[in-house]
Amino acid sequence: MSKGIKIVTIGGGSSYTPELVEGFIKRYDELPVRELWLVDIEAGKEKLEIVGAMAKRMVKAAGVDCEVHLTLDRREALKDADFVTTQLRVGLLDARILDERIPLSHGLIGQETNGAGGIFKALRTVPVILDIVEDMKELCPNAWLINFTNPAGMVTEAVLRYGNWDKVVGLCNIPVNAVFEEAALLGEDNRDLFFQFAGINHLHWHTITDKNGKDRTDELIKVMYGQDDAKSIVANIKDNNLIWEQVENLHMVPCPYHNYYYYTDKMLAEELEDFKNNGTRAEKVKEIEHELFELYKDPNLDYKPKQLAERGGARYSDAACEIINSIHNDKRTTMTVSTRNNGTITDLPAESAVEVTCTITGKGPVPYNFGSFKPQERGLLQVMKSMEELTIEAAVTGDYGTLLQAFTMNPLITSGDVAKEVMDELLEAHKQYLPAFFKEGK
Amino acid sequence: MSKGIKIVTIGGGSSYTPELVEGFIKRYDELPVRELWLVDIEAGKEKLEIVGAMAKRMVKAAGVDCEVHLTLDRREALKDADFVTTQLRVGLLDARILDERIPLSHGLIGQETNGAGGIFKALRTVPVILDIVEDMKELCPNAWLINFTNPAGMVTEAVLRYGNWDKVVGLCNIPVNAVFEEAALLGEDNRDLFFQFAGINHLHWHTITDKNGKDRTDELIKVMYGQDDAKSIVANIKDNNLIWEQVENLHMVPCPYHNYYYYTDKMLAEELEDFKNNGTRAEKVKEIEHELFELYKDPNLDYKPKQLAERGGARYSDAACEIINSIHNDKRTTMTVSTRNNGTITDLPAESAVEVTCTITGKGPVPYNFGSFKPQERGLLQVMKSMEELTIEAAVTGDYGTLLQAFTMNPLITSGDVAKEVMDELLEAHKQYLPAFFKEGK
Amino acid sequence: MSKGIKIVTIGGGSSYTPELVEGFIKRYDELPVRELWLVDIEAGKEKLEIVGAMAKRMVKAAGVDCEVHLTLDRREALKDADFVTTQLRVGLLDARILDERIPLSHGLIGQETNGAGGIFKALRTVPVILDIVEDMKELCPNAWLINFTNPAGMVTEAVLRYGNWDKVVGLCNIPVNAVFEEAALLGEDNRDLFFQFAGINHLHWHTITDKNGKDRTDELIKVMYGQDDAKSIVANIKDNNLIWEQVENLHMVPCPYHNYYYYTDKMLAEELEDFKNNGTRAEKVKEIEHELFELYKDPNLDYKPKQLAERGGARYSDAACEIINSIHNDKRTTMTVSTRNNGTITDLPAESAVEVTCTITGKGPVPYNFGSFKPQERGLLQVMKSMEELTIEAAVTGDYGTLLQAFTMNPLITSGDVAKEVMDELLEAHKQYLPAFFKEGK
Amino acid sequence: MSKGIKIVTIGGGSSYTPELVEGFIKRYDELPVRELWLVDIEAGKEKLEIVGAMAKRMVKAAGVDCEVHLTLDRREALKDADFVTTQLRVGLLDARILDERIPLSHGLIGQETNGAGGIFKALRTVPVILDIVEDMKELCPNAWLINFTNPAGMVTEAVLRYGNWDKVVGLCNIPVNAVFEEAALLGEDNRDLFFQFAGINHLHWHTITDKNGKDRTDELIKVMYGQDDAKSIVANIKDNNLIWEQVENLHMVPCPYHNYYYYTDKMLAEELEDFKNNGTRAEKVKEIEHELFELYKDPNLDYKPKQLAERGGARYSDAACEIINSIHNDKRTTMTVSTRNNGTITDLPAESAVEVTCTITGKGPVPYNFGSFKPQERGLLQVMKSMEELTIEAAVTGDYGTLLQAFTMNPLITSGDVAKEVMDELLEAHKQYLPAFFKEGK
Repeated sequence: MSKGIKIVTIGGGSSYTPELVEGFIKRYDELPVRELWLVDIEAGKEKLEIVGAMAKRMVKAAGVDCEVHLTLDRREALKDADFVTTQLRVGLLDARILDERIPLSHGLIGQETNGAGGIFKALRTVPVILDIVEDMKELCPNAWLINFTNPAGMVTEAVLRYGNWDKVVGLCNIPVNAVFEEAALLGEDNRDLFFQFAGINHLHWHTITDKNGKDRTDELIKVMYGQDDAKSIVANIKDNNLIWEQVENLHMVPCPYHNYYYYTDKMLAEELEDFKNNGTRAEKVKEIEHELFELYKDPNLDYKPKQLAERGGARYSDAACEIINSIHNDKRTTMTVSTRNNGTITDLPAESAVEVTCTITGKGPVPYNFGSFKPQERGLLQVMKSMEELTIEAAVTGDYGTLLQAFTMNPLITSGDVAKEVMDELLEAHKQYLPAFFKEGK
Repeated sequence: MSKGIKIVTIGGGSSYTPELVEGFIKRYDELPVRELWLVDIEAGKEKLEIVGAMAKRMVKAAGVDCEVHLTLDRREALKDADFVTTQLRVGLLDARILDERIPLSHGLIGQETNGAGGIFKALRTVPVILDIVEDMKELCPNAWLINFTNPAGMVTEAVLRYGNWDKVVGLCNIPVNAVFEEAALLGEDNRDLFFQFAGINHLHWHTITDKNGKDRTDELIKVMYGQDDAKSIVANIKDNNLIWEQVENLHMVPCPYHNYYYYTDKMLAEELEDFKNNGTRAEKVKEIEHELFELYKDPNLDYKPKQLAERGGARYSDAACEIINSIHNDKRTTMTVSTRNNGTITDLPAESAVEVTCTITGKGPVPYNFGSFKPQERGLLQVMKSMEELTIEAAVTGDYGTLLQAFTMNPLITSGDVAKEVMDELLEAHKQYLPAFFKEGK
Repeated sequence: MSKGIKIVTIGGGSSYTPELVEGFIKRYDELPVRELWLVDIEAGKEKLEIVGAMAKRMVKAAGVDCEVHLTLDRREALKDADFVTTQLRVGLLDARILDERIPLSHGLIGQETNGAGGIFKALRTVPVILDIVEDMKELCPNAWLINFTNPAGMVTEAVLRYGNWDKVVGLCNIPVNAVFEEAALLGEDNRDLFFQFAGINHLHWHTITDKNGKDRTDELIKVMYGQDDAKSIVANIKDNNLIWEQVENLHMVPCPYHNYYYYTDKMLAEELEDFKNNGTRAEKVKEIEHELFELYKDPNLDYKPKQLAERGGARYSDAACEIINSIHNDKRTTMTVSTRNNGTITDLPAESAVEVTCTITGKGPVPYNFGSFKPQERGLLQVMKSMEELTIEAAVTGDYGTLLQAFTMNPLITSGDVAKEVMDELLEAHKQYLPAFFKEGK
Repeated sequence: MSKGIKIVTIGGGSSYTPELVEGFIKRYDELPVRELWLVDIEAGKEKLEIVGAMAKRMVKAAGVDCEVHLTLDRREALKDADFVTTQLRVGLLDARILDERIPLSHGLIGQETNGAGGIFKALRTVPVILDIVEDMKELCPNAWLINFTNPAGMVTEAVLRYGNWDKVVGLCNIPVNAVFEEAALLGEDNRDLFFQFAGINHLHWHTITDKNGKDRTDELIKVMYGQDDAKSIVANIKDNNLIWEQVENLHMVPCPYHNYYYYTDKMLAEELEDFKNNGTRAEKVKEIEHELFELYKDPNLDYKPKQLAERGGARYSDAACEIINSIHNDKRTTMTVSTRNNGTITDLPAESAVEVTCTITGKGPVPYNFGSFKPQERGLLQVMKSMEELTIEAAVTGDYGTLLQAFTMNPLITSGDVAKEVMDELLEAHKQYLPAFFKEGK
């Protein structure tokens, strides 16, 4: 018999785990997590032990009644779980290096969740997540799956469409960060602003309204992207990559990943330059991770080190804790997550996953209705959703032609020979993680 | 220059006004109403003076800094208003008596907001509300219109479609009451339950989920309508009018007006019996109102008398205050109101008014997405919405054939000769309030 | 091995069969039917032999090379069929007598395909048709099912939704007859007019355009329903049941069954009067059928007797032959049939059966796009489609509550106690044909 | 008073006119064109006179009773027209040279109807066509507009959305040619195959079914694009540009312009090479046109010379004649044209123009219903339609930001600085034809 809330974290050896532990500790009064199971695979055993030991120290230092379990046996962990979080990385960072290096070496964007790299990350991840869902059906049929493995939108849609599992939430820190940072740019407390996001993971737009019902979106766009005011706060914003006339015309704030679609030439030039000089982003992340794990080894460290925040996933794990808290306590917090569309955005299929602002209730996320986009946003959103559907279908079926359609549809991949060559090279490189594509007789 | 929040209440001589005043008084700290303008027409002057005097006594007794103005000059009042509430009754209760008496005398349901009577209430009210909206465009273009004049759904849709005015909320006390009463039936605090309503005014269904994410809808249906348990709490519920096998199959809780559509034969028999013995409901309401106004005349009465609650509109005006409060303060309260559909219910046109659970923000109601109904609910909802569209169109154009279509479509009106006769008799009876139907040259 | 086109007619003992045989004979050059299998059940054996003998005489007299087979073994007949036509009547006319008598005895419309009677006809028929489809999957997987068993729309939808069989066409003679009769009223050759029908079986509307692109709909409505012109051709039209102001406002021509929905009071009064004086329509049909079979016994009769045309199903079987001909020869004839909606009418679900004007190609019916209805038609159409969905679901599942929803939704059935009583009485009366409702343990 | 059918051809000085005249001559028995008005502008006067003289010779040689009028006064011509055809080219071929040269010089696809060039062709053409529509409203309110000016889809949508004119058909020869050529590849008579096209102008897909109802699409794809059979007929097909695994996966036949989207790298490389060596396609067309006009000057030439067929617009004008014939005679010919979507393709807005297979009736094109696309086709179609909507809006409003969105959305234009530079250069180059962008005060 379970003696309180039981959380299972798959990919528990991740460097993000301390933030998750911190998140549970600080919410302990509302959300008494009595068991936290960190699960990893053989290849991640060493990391699991390092981060697991640190998690135990953190819990002990906090004085909360929570047992931390480390295991390589996923099924043992899943038994009677209340919430399962997934933060795994199939093929580890070495796979990401290939996702970035191979497209870049052909002159294409090479990125973790966008373009050819993002497609392959989905191909590797979807089958593993669907496997976890099958275990959940058997071992913890009432649990919620809180996924923050990227690409979080496609993973969520795969679980909904092919896993036939409704209790899933996809999570990303982009909307959380936007709320904090943009409120500051407007000189407001973020609790005084209503942000409504709509789109799909890593490709959404939002509007901002203040307490007086005044739409502040255009004002923020001006602050972030305006160029006529020399004293503009914009000077301090890195990666101010959009062309003013375009972003002004949106009347919605784009997300950071829009840079890839709205300013493809500049992004590609920068990436290629950076690749030439410094190698891939994944290699840099690998170094940072290595340093983090060195820190984590310190037997006196019993709190989340500040270096973790610099890792790039700030507020990710904390957001995961908050969703769990909101579901568990029916808190009706306003959060932006990936969930079933069901008419929220009328331009996309009802059964798609979308990333929209929701209230998080005891029955999970209930989206705020959005309606239709203007053509400014609509076409790009729709082509990306078709690309996602094809990718997910290819991940499940291992069909080469379907995958080639996804490549062709993706705005960051030049269609034709180059698309096919990059795809073939990635298929070969990730062969061991793509059994659906390489099964006997294919 | 306005010296704080200015509220204008059209139909200010209504017996409901004291609840409204009480609502503003008790929220004064959050919602400092500095001016309350009660507007009425010549025919309502006496009532306006009685209820206005009482409102002034209430404000004084409460010691809040709020000026109460009484006027017959609507345009003077509207100038620079922040919120306009409408609680008017075109033709007063005498018109309602006809709305009830004429259909009943032909053997049809005669009711304030349903059937032939409801259609004619819409015909009389829509033009007046559209007129108010025209004044608002000129005199207070930033104000919100909070309508609780029935039929609230059709009035809201008329404002959206024909008034081209987006800042409108339609309000009804049915959902508010359901939340309180049904939580009690389930033995829960209503704040611990998530009620999600969807449909149109006076024809909606809802589900209930508790803090644990458990759907409690079927349990409540059993409590309210189950007949196999002699000790069931149901024994205490009046108007338990639905057939068990039907209501069980809905898996959503119907609203009280569903009785007219789900149990037409019994409702009609009861109404006809009541009509024979006691006359119309409107006549009874007229008596109650008379008594209320007698009470209100008491120069010592400076609080809302308990008799008002028995009037039938309990929690109506309080809900109106709460919406105003939520918009003014961006409170994000969860309330169920009539607002633009915009895809919330995918079975109805995007531009329709629907009554759905929303979060009330500084930019007005943002609906929780609902999606599609099962055929159990869908067909009835759709035929009623078409009936509403036809009624609103007839109200605006004065077209006889369009109105006859609305009559034919309405499930409570037998189509054919009887429909036409009742319609003709009502047109004649309400001639003075229906200039669109009787204009020169028609 | 099949030696040409093989047709299987289930319910081959029907009095309509001679028209079907005549239809094949006159199309023999284009559509060489070499085998016609007339299938019936034990209870229909005598009729099968009478009509079968006559069919053989007709074929012989025509001198065409076609073998007529009579059998009670459906599976033997279905083997390698090219087209299967269904014209069966579960429970024979005695069941129809009950479908009419029981509702009428409770003061409700009692009719073969509308109201409570139509619902029960569907309940009896759907399981039998789905059984035939299962046999077809095994024995003639490339065959087309041409259904003209009523209610043809619900049967078609059941085959599409629950039979998972796409090669089905539902057929009704109402549109065929309208084309002939209304062209005559307009003084035109029907080939010079473009009729576009949209709706569902027995509840559709249509527009008429002439060769000059002129819309002639309103003109026809005036001819058929106008009352101001004493010399109007309308005087000659029987059953001119609609109220002028209503029908004028439609701007589409309603079908004859609209009388039940647009003029319910008059239709009901007439039916009840007729029932009191003459019994049910089914009893009259039984007499007519008896007389027809007496005629068919004449060993010298080798052509379709003119009395058959008076039977009420004129042009039915001929239309079936024409559809078969059009599919077989990819003739692209314009015909109005029941087929999958798939967006043709945007107001109804994509997977519904609709009755719309199509071109009949080698791949079956391809509907002419229709779009959206005005609210005048939309609401009634939608409530009827929900009623159909519930009826079909009840036919398949045997669920009592679902059936009660269908009864409640049906505009011709007063909801409440009377609905339940009529339903209970019909269930009991048709018990032997409704195994899903009376299976062990229910 | 008109003495028969009156046709007005705007851009009458086009080299295509002889095919149009030939088309009318050969249909004269069914479609007695008594007046053909060829209209052009001052800059096209010389061509008009050459081609007009030839048209008169053709009519005379054919011995048909048809007056050919040449005029620069459009309004005089439009008076009481029955059909208006538009085949104009704003800015003549010199503008097209710029549409091709400017993008190519920045390394982008430079093409008449696709990419940046196609967008600018729309910007120049839409205002002129809307102007013509305004004249038609006044001078020939019952006439049909048959547009074959490119980009035909956007022009049609502009007329529907902004011109508020329903009697418009957009025409392209791609579907006509596909029917002829692909039937030949399948060894069939095209009249024995049912081609169903769906999409938008220059971006559609189709399926092919034969008389036996057999889908022949995959077979044709194999014939056209299959590479495993050395003796495949494919060897003879020019521009076999698609990757087999992709096209096989479509299960629909793409149109020739898909090469730009499915094989962007190869198409771009070929175009750039061709541009370097031979200049633009427009310059070649200009030479061909020059030669054609030299031919046309021959006072003995009174028939369409075979060289015209090589010009690239084969079957264009003939298709226009056939549409006119079909509308005039309610012929119900099956043709693929641009018309209002209205639900035909459920993935696109109802009010959009789509290019779909229709039956051409007296009331114009009635589309065969299509339904939804698979994601393979859907995303690309949707992003292109948004791009079109933005382009049309920009053409009407002259809004710079909206145009930049169209550029960004277009898959053939690299977004970012290069998009903006190409756009700015094209705006400057076509300044005189874009008054909306350069009006006073902008």
